[in-house]
Amino acid sequence: MSETITRPDPVVSGAQDILGTRGLLVDPEMIEPWLTDWRGRYHGKARALAQPETAAELSALVRLCARMNVPLVPQGGNSGMVGGATPDESGQAILLSLRRMNALRIDAATSTADCGAGVILQTLHEAAAAQDLRFPLSLGGKGSATVGGLISTNAGGTQVLRHGTMRALVEGLEVVLADGSILDLTSALKKDNRGFDLKQLWIGSEGTLGIVTRAVVRLIPAIAERRVAWAGVDTIHDARRLLLHCQQALPQALEGFEVIPRDCLDHVLVYMPDAQPPLAQRHGWNVLMEFDADRDAAASLGEAVENVLANAFESGLIDDAVIAANETQAEAFWELRENVASAERQRGPARQHDISVPVELMPDLLDRAEREIPEQFPGVEVVGFGHLGDGNIHLHTIAPQGVDVDEWERGDGARISELVYRMVTDHGGSISAEHGIGQDKLKALQETRDPVAMDVMRAVKQALDPHGLLNPGKLVAPKG
Amino acid sequence: MSETITRPDPVVSGAQDILGTRGLLVDPEMIEPWLTDWRGRYHGKARALAQPETAAELSALVRLCARMNVPLVPQGGNSGMVGGATPDESGQAILLSLRRMNALRIDAATSTADCGAGVILQTLHEAAAAQDLRFPLSLGGKGSATVGGLISTNAGGTQVLRHGTMRALVEGLEVVLADGSILDLTSALKKDNRGFDLKQLWIGSEGTLGIVTRAVVRLIPAIAERRVAWAGVDTIHDARRLLLHCQQALPQALEGFEVIPRDCLDHVLVYMPDAQPPLAQRHGWNVLMEFDADRDAAASLGEAVENVLANAFESGLIDDAVIAANETQAEAFWELRENVASAERQRGPARQHDISVPVELMPDLLDRAEREIPEQFPGVEVVGFGHLGDGNIHLHTIAPQGVDVDEWERGDGARISELVYRMVTDHGGSISAEHGIGQDKLKALQETRDPVAMDVMRAVKQALDPHGLLNPGKLVAPKG
Repeated sequence: MSETITRPDPVVSGAQDILGTRGLLVDPEMIEPWLTDWRGRYHGKARALAQPETAAELSALVRLCARMNVPLVPQGGNSGMVGGATPDESGQAILLSLRRMNALRIDAATSTADCGAGVILQTLHEAAAAQDLRFPLSLGGKGSATVGGLISTNAGGTQVLRHGTMRALVEGLEVVLADGSILDLTSALKKDNRGFDLKQLWIGSEGTLGIVTRAVVRLIPAIAERRVAWAGVDTIHDARRLLLHCQQALPQALEGFEVIPRDCLDHVLVYMPDAQPPLAQRHGWNVLMEFDADRDAAASLGEAVENVLANAFESGLIDDAVIAANETQAEAFWELRENVASAERQRGPARQHDISVPVELMPDLLDRAEREIPEQFPGVEVVGFGHLGDGNIHLHTIAPQGVDVDEWERGDGARISELVYRMVTDHGGSISAEHGIGQDKLKALQETRDPVAMDVMRAVKQALDPHGLLNPGKLVAPKG
Repeated sequence: MSETITRPDPVVSGAQDILGTRGLLVDPEMIEPWLTDWRGRYHGKARALAQPETAAELSALVRLCARMNVPLVPQGGNSGMVGGATPDESGQAILLSLRRMNALRIDAATSTADCGAGVILQTLHEAAAAQDLRFPLSLGGKGSATVGGLISTNAGGTQVLRHGTMRALVEGLEVVLADGSILDLTSALKKDNRGFDLKQLWIGSEGTLGIVTRAVVRLIPAIAERRVAWAGVDTIHDARRLLLHCQQALPQALEGFEVIPRDCLDHVLVYMPDAQPPLAQRHGWNVLMEFDADRDAAASLGEAVENVLANAFESGLIDDAVIAANETQAEAFWELRENVASAERQRGPARQHDISVPVELMPDLLDRAEREIPEQFPGVEVVGFGHLGDGNIHLHTIAPQGVDVDEWERGDGARISELVYRMVTDHGGSISAEHGIGQDKLKALQETRDPVAMDVMRAVKQALDPHGLLNPGKLVAPKG
């Protein structure tokens, strides 16, 4: 009988020297939960889970990995949508958790927050609120999503219309590069023209060009007053006209503009049997709007919103509308919106597409998708909902009842996605508006994106991570 | 007697085939005016002046230059401050004017302008105004500065406080790369997470990474009402407190916050003998503020600004203040500010420093500069003025009377700049807030910037322009 002799992994022992035993987990049971993405679609292996506490520790780890040719897969809250934080199955990589780098300091005088990459979004919200300030970015995963992850994926959410994506809120950041050097770009300068804005490289690059360890983000005054309204309109074109109307009337106040088609609201009401429909009748499209004001603008908000909706009604833009009478009702409106994805998911297997086009083209694109997809794929249902104000719709295509799911996914499902991505590309749009590319959309990206743009991405990757050790298999590979 | 036989330059004849005779000037007299920067500090030579009309023509020209190893020096309005558009003296380069690419289309429905790189800023202002819209970036050279130049230098100006630099206004752009490929990023998507935001690479990179040929920029509603106020305060620290006060009270309205020290205003009043001082008495620092409102907020602006200033006066923040009674007086206030640089220049040779630090640190930095520079360089006068709201001051250090200017420039002048840049760097600031690097600050950049940041810049340059043919000798050279 032969014995297996396990030789110590020199990478692991080197990393342990740097991080200590608390900073480097090797126990498979401890690592296991982080090797699968939260939707359970991707699973990988890792030789260890590194949890550095400082940029200096991470720098030493990255140098070690560079020397020993070991890939690093950074991970924040592990709540991404595209498998961007899951390692491959080779077991070569070190999984890198930034969660222990969670120092947080609010500076009320400059309206900024200095956050470690591991700070959880909800924590940032609460710390800002305690100083009568607000970090104006929120999304479903706020209880787990980290600042580092939000930067690496240039996260969006429901307030982009007014405040932009994460990119617009990052004033400075610190990053550890592929060779282990630490680049400190946290000095929050309003103006700096020493060449192009370096920090942009690490916003939205999914950990493939360096590892964000810290950021200074912008805060704004807390909301003093809000109005949440629900309107029924006939068509998505009417919804777009209502959007323009609201933007022209109250450009500073309009924070959210979400659309939900009739059937989709029906599904939500089935999924949430205790919920009330906001309007007495069913309408072709439902629009959820939020208008916000800080202290100075609070007094006039209520009347202004009433006027805007009254005008929209009088000019025939909307069929019916209601303004939430209180915070409980406002929250109830938002809950309907927040449960759309779950309600749709419960109805059966679907392909989900997180797409954007210039806002003015979205109604046409939706029309086309609703017509052409069922034509070409009989029995498939098309549901588009979400952030119309940003030109960003989540387009779900639901498999016909009774199909073999795996087979459908590989066959018609894949072909439907190809069709959707072709339509989007025809409209000058993006196949990933807010979820990123990760491993999920890698092939679709290569198939749809302008080869010149892909070349630039590969050249920059080659320049900043020539050996391809940072989050390999995601977004982009080096050119060489 | 020997004869000089001039052989035809194959680069010139190749370029002429592509651009035609109108598109390629070789007559030295025609080219001469563009070979010197507008301040007359840099002079270069070029084998020809290329004036393509389309991105396709430019693409062919860039391919030719790549094949024949010929540098290209792009130029917009030739009104830059750092010699960034002037070729070197070798005569090898082709000077590339983008001025004929000046198509302009305003889209009122989407509040955007689609501009060729050669569109002049003033033209864009007028075209937007004709549709009751506004492009909220302005600067002294607006009659010559082009959209392409403004993007390549990430231009600032007096409205950055509210609307950001050029970077914040560019929604999309088209660029010709070093290999001649054309990258079209003009589809104006509010959300696009197909990796990092490529267009950021060409904003502020001074033509060293590619040549911007077209851009879609954001417009906002026209100003319906404005209030321009002038206040006298004791110290720069008081000015900073007044800034915070105004920002908290009227964050949406405050568009400009400029500071001018007492002596500096005196110099302007000497330089403009017909001008009136806005306030009866002299004050340590003068603050020029502009508050703007669009149609919807117009009615309440006047009273709001009066309240803000009354509160500031009552709480002792300001010693005296006046709100311009009409547009003529408002313009007169701004004229005082706009003539500061010329008034200072007339007083004699000076080193000018366009510096920024985090806004809250600027008062200390100014104190330190005013104290330390005359201590170490007796007879030198220090004048700091400008965009306090952005943490961006133009710090002029005026040579002692009677010195030999050239000698002073090379000796004490250079040492003063070193001292200023060291102070700025100590405060986490930038040696170039808005003017860029060009050839003027190349050495200072290399001496002061974090080597890790310089490495990243060089690596990206290497990736996108490996042979260093795009605007060589400016900003950054390839790594190799």
